Amino acid sequence: MNMNNMPLARVGVLGATGYTGLELLRILGRHGGVEVAFATSEGSAGAPSGVPGLSLVVGQDAPLDEVDVVFLCLPHGEAVAWARRSADAGARVVDLTADHRPGSGREAGWVYGLADLAADAVAPARLVANPGCYPTGVQLALEPLAHADLVDTANPVVVNAASGVTGAGRTPKRELLFAEVAGDYRAYATGNGHRHLLEMRAGLPELRLLFQPHLLPVARGILETIYVPVRAGVDAAAVRACWRTAFGSTHTVTVTDGVPTLAEVVHTDRLVLGASDNAGIPDVVTAVASFDNLGKGAAGQAIHNMNLMLGLDPTRGLRL
Amino acid sequence: MNMNNMPLARVGVLGATGYTGLELLRILGRHGGVEVAFATSEGSAGAPSGVPGLSLVVGQDAPLDEVDVVFLCLPHGEAVAWARRSADAGARVVDLTADHRPGSGREAGWVYGLADLAADAVAPARLVANPGCYPTGVQLALEPLAHADLVDTANPVVVNAASGVTGAGRTPKRELLFAEVAGDYRAYATGNGHRHLLEMRAGLPELRLLFQPHLLPVARGILETIYVPVRAGVDAAAVRACWRTAFGSTHTVTVTDGVPTLAEVVHTDRLVLGASDNAGIPDVVTAVASFDNLGKGAAGQAIHNMNLMLGLDPTRGLRL
Amino acid sequence: MNMNNMPLARVGVLGATGYTGLELLRILGRHGGVEVAFATSEGSAGAPSGVPGLSLVVGQDAPLDEVDVVFLCLPHGEAVAWARRSADAGARVVDLTADHRPGSGREAGWVYGLADLAADAVAPARLVANPGCYPTGVQLALEPLAHADLVDTANPVVVNAASGVTGAGRTPKRELLFAEVAGDYRAYATGNGHRHLLEMRAGLPELRLLFQPHLLPVARGILETIYVPVRAGVDAAAVRACWRTAFGSTHTVTVTDGVPTLAEVVHTDRLVLGASDNAGIPDVVTAVASFDNLGKGAAGQAIHNMNLMLGLDPTRGLRL
Amino acid sequence: MNMNNMPLARVGVLGATGYTGLELLRILGRHGGVEVAFATSEGSAGAPSGVPGLSLVVGQDAPLDEVDVVFLCLPHGEAVAWARRSADAGARVVDLTADHRPGSGREAGWVYGLADLAADAVAPARLVANPGCYPTGVQLALEPLAHADLVDTANPVVVNAASGVTGAGRTPKRELLFAEVAGDYRAYATGNGHRHLLEMRAGLPELRLLFQPHLLPVARGILETIYVPVRAGVDAAAVRACWRTAFGSTHTVTVTDGVPTLAEVVHTDRLVLGASDNAGIPDVVTAVASFDNLGKGAAGQAIHNMNLMLGLDPTRGLRL
Repeated sequence: MNMNNMPLARVGVLGATGYTGLELLRILGRHGGVEVAFATSEGSAGAPSGVPGLSLVVGQDAPLDEVDVVFLCLPHGEAVAWARRSADAGARVVDLTADHRPGSGREAGWVYGLADLAADAVAPARLVANPGCYPTGVQLALEPLAHADLVDTANPVVVNAASGVTGAGRTPKRELLFAEVAGDYRAYATGNGHRHLLEMRAGLPELRLLFQPHLLPVARGILETIYVPVRAGVDAAAVRACWRTAFGSTHTVTVTDGVPTLAEVVHTDRLVLGASDNAGIPDVVTAVASFDNLGKGAAGQAIHNMNLMLGLDPTRGLRL
Repeated sequence: MNMNNMPLARVGVLGATGYTGLELLRILGRHGGVEVAFATSEGSAGAPSGVPGLSLVVGQDAPLDEVDVVFLCLPHGEAVAWARRSADAGARVVDLTADHRPGSGREAGWVYGLADLAADAVAPARLVANPGCYPTGVQLALEPLAHADLVDTANPVVVNAASGVTGAGRTPKRELLFAEVAGDYRAYATGNGHRHLLEMRAGLPELRLLFQPHLLPVARGILETIYVPVRAGVDAAAVRACWRTAFGSTHTVTVTDGVPTLAEVVHTDRLVLGASDNAGIPDVVTAVASFDNLGKGAAGQAIHNMNLMLGLDPTRGLRL
Repeated sequence: MNMNNMPLARVGVLGATGYTGLELLRILGRHGGVEVAFATSEGSAGAPSGVPGLSLVVGQDAPLDEVDVVFLCLPHGEAVAWARRSADAGARVVDLTADHRPGSGREAGWVYGLADLAADAVAPARLVANPGCYPTGVQLALEPLAHADLVDTANPVVVNAASGVTGAGRTPKRELLFAEVAGDYRAYATGNGHRHLLEMRAGLPELRLLFQPHLLPVARGILETIYVPVRAGVDAAAVRACWRTAFGSTHTVTVTDGVPTLAEVVHTDRLVLGASDNAGIPDVVTAVASFDNLGKGAAGQAIHNMNLMLGLDPTRGLRL
Repeated sequence: MNMNNMPLARVGVLGATGYTGLELLRILGRHGGVEVAFATSEGSAGAPSGVPGLSLVVGQDAPLDEVDVVFLCLPHGEAVAWARRSADAGARVVDLTADHRPGSGREAGWVYGLADLAADAVAPARLVANPGCYPTGVQLALEPLAHADLVDTANPVVVNAASGVTGAGRTPKRELLFAEVAGDYRAYATGNGHRHLLEMRAGLPELRLLFQPHLLPVARGILETIYVPVRAGVDAAAVRACWRTAFGSTHTVTVTDGVPTLAEVVHTDRLVLGASDNAGIPDVVTAVASFDNLGKGAAGQAIHNMNLMLGLDPTRGLRL
């Protein structure tokens, strides 16, 4: 309900039938403060978009010049051209693909939208690169610790990450079939070569990151167990205190004295952080970050960025 | 171990990387009484077949003339040409596709390999059409009852079937992705139009079948709940007695006084039947058939047929 | 937000740590039009209730006389005494247990809260028995058809139902363990003897119900495939038209021209109905009802009833 | 079949209805070289044991003096008394509980049955403590590396382990219910305090172990991702070479050049090891061990030990 009789901001979604686009429309549907002007699909044009009264259109029929913000939920690689067209049409852009993130070689002119730590830069930006799912957790967990100089930078920070399968997208592939995934669990991208590493390292240049992802037999959610080599005297309590200072009373990142789980964050737009000491291993604090890869790790953070850009309540529409 | 120093029969598998072909090789691997001479794959030639020492080859490199039995685990539609080639090369054929089953229009000259009820016809056959998964359960449950005239043929026999996703094959499709299937359950092929109906009706011409399949969020297994309209005076005890007479002491079909479950049959080659009366509804007995769609419903029955054709112990190699 | 400066109605939840109680608090947390005054737990008193600022208390510490409505989410059998105490304290009661439903022997004085079809009776009621999960779907699908005389009452109506495991409650039992349920699917309560039958029959006295439930390897959701014997000339289109007349433009029950799925209704408070004809079997229309057993099948309908009782928008707070 | 007309060795199972006992009977059922003389259950005496012709009996009715080997699959804590009774009756004992493992305080007189590395000690032993599931993988992966002095003992070895829920036993607990586990993934026993640590450290006294287990939403299987700090110049190839030297051509531990998965080992009695280098982090090699917690991690290793004790083929009956 638009109580102030002000015209609502208008937004459009390019690529509305992948998991990220669907999630974005779901959040927009409960947001109340913006109007969805278009949602595109090359393969399903004419079908319902999920937004009442709005049918999907092909990209070239999207009225880019009629919206305030365009979200790019396209396959990686296709965002460059569409970002340019959208900007040329006068729209601001939130790109959920990897195409303009740090390490892409095309990040110049783009603000990196790690919303919880970059609100001031995002608010005025016209071009925002929405962070990748894995980097969101790694950076929110580690940036405050690195900046507070709690981390022993001589030793590797081991990030043992596990993700649900929607993180791999909705394009049919044999290895994503139900009968292949159910009952399985596996490491992938071994060798410290995941494409998200450049993005993580841009935010954490002082750390020696070892990032090892695994595929979980769940639809949604990421849980990252991070073995943080800490400076002498630093313990889990200090880690939690550092996080609480960094994130204050925001509800998009919460710090628990317990252990974060996947179940408590799926279908939400928040990230939960926890830390524990290790008996006999005082030089390592174990940090755990849990969040929904489609929510906080993609669409939720994109809406957070949009709220900042439009001067709305930063958490409006979010499931916290 | 071939204790009699007789040369082992030799078999080949055309299409060895789908779920059915993989399952067939798994059973052949524990059979001990036959030698796998070749296994084909158009896309993975050169890769290991799963059989020690045997690499996959493309179909045209398969030595059809060197084997006693060829199994066709091809995509539906591709079996016709390969069956002819195999037969021309002197091999006997077990076709696991739908291409030569009743209702296909190409069943002339082929024996329908419903192994438990057609052993005498299968044994001398050179061309055997292996039954479909759903029809295997429906026919094994209902043929004995129909032949014993226990069924009220004026009223519909409702078959409420549920299958794991391997029944839909291994070709990547969006609706088979883990994130689409997990947590879901749905009816499909509504309208009594499933392609397996012609096959079922061929075995059960006197019955009015209403067949409604559902997709289960499990990898393997079929459970069919069959609401059988019975003649006056027929109850569950009579149904079980009829089955026990029909199947005798075979271990490939067992009759329980309890309720069959999916868990007890997955990764086996047997089918379990159960029956119960219904309080207040004496004109319907509920029959339940459970079996593994890849085992008893495909590869297990194919091996059963091969054993009959080669004069081996009918259950050799089967997981009972 | 309470924009009218009217004091909000106050409600309490007896039994807030089972699946139904948790779901009820989840919906109340987004309702906005009522205040939760207490939530009880005999085993976890003192712990957070999930409602900000509200801790769990034991039942005897619940201020029954300070609330307008009490929800009973207790184990079956314990609601009788608590309903009396609540009523004596002046509260209106919505009982989510089976203790006062039709067939319980204690239904006198209670209104049966099948919200979509009984709004007029529920609104003034002081004692409302919230329907069971399975009966909600069966009755919403069949009552309009029975009242419009579309059903052939001489033949059995076969209800093949399948439910997620939360339907069996949160008390630990071996058969509900993950390792027992994952990969399984089974019929239970065979013999047409499920305890929900009396409740269904009370609403559908003219029908011959055969109700067969199954346990699905999913956490939530019920899908009922109902084989409806219809009078001559009645088809699926007539069934859908009848439903559309009965439910009008409500969003709590919707009618689709397609086939309802579990995935589209979990975590919602709506029920979807679909119907299809059957080739060759014109005397049976297949109806499908899908809904969330904890949402529409329990807590969602309870909130619907509360809204009616308090004169609020009937769908306030519901996830539609 | 006992082709040599030698009397078969006889064995008994104390505690045959938990997941470990059931798995042990499953392997014994395909072993062929031993006879199961009894299987006990305090709660289900009289019911079928799963072994044809053998009913469950209560423990006090078990003829301990008639068997060569007794397996203890009892709840932890109950094995001490039963081990003594069995030994007094003249039986050799394989204890699958934790009661006589290193760190238990009762390990004197017991041989630790890490079968792949302790065959010579196990063969003549009368009392064998079967290793815990997690320690089996950790020790098989790390002992050869530690003995070859490949590990940098100054830095922590981080073991990020993940296990299916059968690892937690079959006693009903809320946190093991399907609806709690499905869709979740969580760390537990944080703080480096898991009860298996003493056992692991006994085999790896020179290493600084940090062991962090997680609960996977699967029924079976353990995958341990181990971040091994290596001495300068040691790489993944050296690690694999070391393993291959240690395990030779045994089929119970295999070394892959790829990445082990859970899917390839569930329902087997083998363990797969893999190793990879990490770009930019030359001081850490990532090792992965995957195996079935009930197979290789419990019953499979117990049968392996029994085979060694009875002088049979070490892998007889195992699923390799």
